Amino acid sequence: MNAESMRVLLQAVRTRQPLVHNITNLVVMNNTANALLAIGASPAMVHSCDEVEDFVALSQALVVNIGTLHSEQIAAAKLAVARARTAGIPWVFDPVGAGATPYRRAAASALTRLQPNVIRGNGSEILALTQQAQSGQGRGVDSTDRSETAVEAARTLALETGAVVAVTGTVDYITDGKRLTEIHNGHPMMARVTGLGCSATALIGAFLGVERDAFSATVAGLALLGVAGEMAAQQAEGPGSLQVKLLDCLYLLEETPWLERLHIETSASARPATD
Amino acid sequence: MNAESMRVLLQAVRTRQPLVHNITNLVVMNNTANALLAIGASPAMVHSCDEVEDFVALSQALVVNIGTLHSEQIAAAKLAVARARTAGIPWVFDPVGAGATPYRRAAASALTRLQPNVIRGNGSEILALTQQAQSGQGRGVDSTDRSETAVEAARTLALETGAVVAVTGTVDYITDGKRLTEIHNGHPMMARVTGLGCSATALIGAFLGVERDAFSATVAGLALLGVAGEMAAQQAEGPGSLQVKLLDCLYLLEETPWLERLHIETSASARPATD
Amino acid sequence: MNAESMRVLLQAVRTRQPLVHNITNLVVMNNTANALLAIGASPAMVHSCDEVEDFVALSQALVVNIGTLHSEQIAAAKLAVARARTAGIPWVFDPVGAGATPYRRAAASALTRLQPNVIRGNGSEILALTQQAQSGQGRGVDSTDRSETAVEAARTLALETGAVVAVTGTVDYITDGKRLTEIHNGHPMMARVTGLGCSATALIGAFLGVERDAFSATVAGLALLGVAGEMAAQQAEGPGSLQVKLLDCLYLLEETPWLERLHIETSASARPATD
Repeated sequence: MNAESMRVLLQAVRTRQPLVHNITNLVVMNNTANALLAIGASPAMVHSCDEVEDFVALSQALVVNIGTLHSEQIAAAKLAVARARTAGIPWVFDPVGAGATPYRRAAASALTRLQPNVIRGNGSEILALTQQAQSGQGRGVDSTDRSETAVEAARTLALETGAVVAVTGTVDYITDGKRLTEIHNGHPMMARVTGLGCSATALIGAFLGVERDAFSATVAGLALLGVAGEMAAQQAEGPGSLQVKLLDCLYLLEETPWLERLHIETSASARPATD
Repeated sequence: MNAESMRVLLQAVRTRQPLVHNITNLVVMNNTANALLAIGASPAMVHSCDEVEDFVALSQALVVNIGTLHSEQIAAAKLAVARARTAGIPWVFDPVGAGATPYRRAAASALTRLQPNVIRGNGSEILALTQQAQSGQGRGVDSTDRSETAVEAARTLALETGAVVAVTGTVDYITDGKRLTEIHNGHPMMARVTGLGCSATALIGAFLGVERDAFSATVAGLALLGVAGEMAAQQAEGPGSLQVKLLDCLYLLEETPWLERLHIETSASARPATD
Repeated sequence: MNAESMRVLLQAVRTRQPLVHNITNLVVMNNTANALLAIGASPAMVHSCDEVEDFVALSQALVVNIGTLHSEQIAAAKLAVARARTAGIPWVFDPVGAGATPYRRAAASALTRLQPNVIRGNGSEILALTQQAQSGQGRGVDSTDRSETAVEAARTLALETGAVVAVTGTVDYITDGKRLTEIHNGHPMMARVTGLGCSATALIGAFLGVERDAFSATVAGLALLGVAGEMAAQQAEGPGSLQVKLLDCLYLLEETPWLERLHIETSASARPATD
């Protein structure tokens, strides 16, 4: 995945405007929808068990996020995922706060078994998914584990599930169990805006909507969010303006030179090159 | 509906602060409430079947929006609408994504039959309400049909239901089946901010709260949002800052000269003057 | 509570990042989470009866807000409160729109009896909680009663419940039934942004997470929000930019001189010093 391929994928999102079906949490719905619109996709938040199967069949990708988990949402997600898989529509899973409670751990585990194309979480969440519950409890929905500490867990999870697994943090790691790509973009202030991890997952969904290679779609989504976040942070006085400018920067990506900002490394060893 | 009448209505909203009861979708609740506050109304989002009837009776207008539709919301909307009609409180219906799924089509159709004072949708949604499902499916909640193509459907729908029907898009069309008003305000970037259609519907609700002529209330709501959106777009770098500045511009409408921006045409033929 | 104590509390929130469990309304979830992140706390919105007990046990404070009330939310709040009290975790109650409907009045009354450490509401809400329903009906979720008119009710409520009671408005009043503190900070434009009262309650939660004296935590939360709101209003053109800049100002509080802005008065008489 190089910059030129990303540019092509970004252009494809703009042109084809993939419909991204989100079954997501109540905190981030608005900014997730806006992030998808800013990058050029067409978002929809559709949750009812009465229509998720019909809706996902119209979509180019499905995003499932368990932030404000409840029983109907799990049921809807399972229905949507089953239909998506039958129809060959890719889906990405965001196991928000996976390790925080037994209920959340069980739901995250059940969804992980439904063959997501991509799983994206912070360090604590990815550790929790691999049953390393002690270290993966996190602080509620925030990570208490640096992304580096979950790279091995990500590799295991990728091999077990067949999903591309992304651990995001100061450095983002993407692995399919064999390759490992690191993204050194982004800005620390992004952690002070709620739901940017959820936006990352949604952007991966947008790229999955135009690119069937899940590894490439994941790298593109995370790298472009990181780059846009960096540009936004340079102009922001705090997290309020960062959230606003991030949407502007995503929108302007096609017209902004971002190549020189991109800091990506890939290795074939599935071991982190840096720490 | 001329600029002077709009100015009087805007002043009435500021002074009387109509309580607008919203049964609306989870994506746009925050920015809908902020749009209503910015124009001078008093918003409330109240959904439980246990209280919607009591609450709507205190309100000056009701807004029903089916964006994130589920069964309890339909039940609550029906209860609230029934009470609103008994009490003579006007209500406006936003059939978000009406054509996307059978569930959504059925719900939209049922609510349309409950005599809304105003229906506002994009081209695909208005086409879907008139059973022209083939062309009105849309892309999820986004329109794939230009507003022009739904003007005839809007006229039919207005005559069938007795509602004022608004089709919004690059040009907004408002008809009661006899008259047709076109609004050529707004800015293309507004389509890249989630829920501005929902804000439009809510602003119509605010004006219905002070003006019983539904046609005038609808034109005022859409024209002022269009004008504020234009002013915001001039200052915005992208959709993030557009959303923020739009609220500022709505708030400042009383002090800003907007007369020369207003681009409205009315004809008695219920046929579009332009294309 | 003087400025130096507040500075120490603010530093404690930044350092200890208390996990604040919110059972709150759907309108304000995003900006509540962002206000908590901006001040330095770690927010989580967790609502399911299947996990609220487990989750609150991990938290340093619980916030219950009945803005978009429904039956499951009441059940979840009761479960979470019971566990919080057993575990000695403080909780703060925001009785949004308490007087608007019988359903809301009953729910607010039931939760008030569960011994919150702090209750924060606007004038109409606090009057409604003390059964002065005639004057405390409000306009939906907005107050029709100035905060001054509810000071006596706040004192009574504090003595009856053992809670610290805060009535917010142009002047904020905090009382435990014996002492009374007035905060003359904030800006009128803050009333034109939805959910800043909810943010106030959440910030009280953040300070309760690091300071067991509920009176001090309440004064700190309200004073710092008022000061940040003033600074934001000076830079804002309208309510859209105010909401954004408020988050920036909360984030920058540690580095900004705000001492000279602070306008607090405390008396031992539990009677307002000014009107």
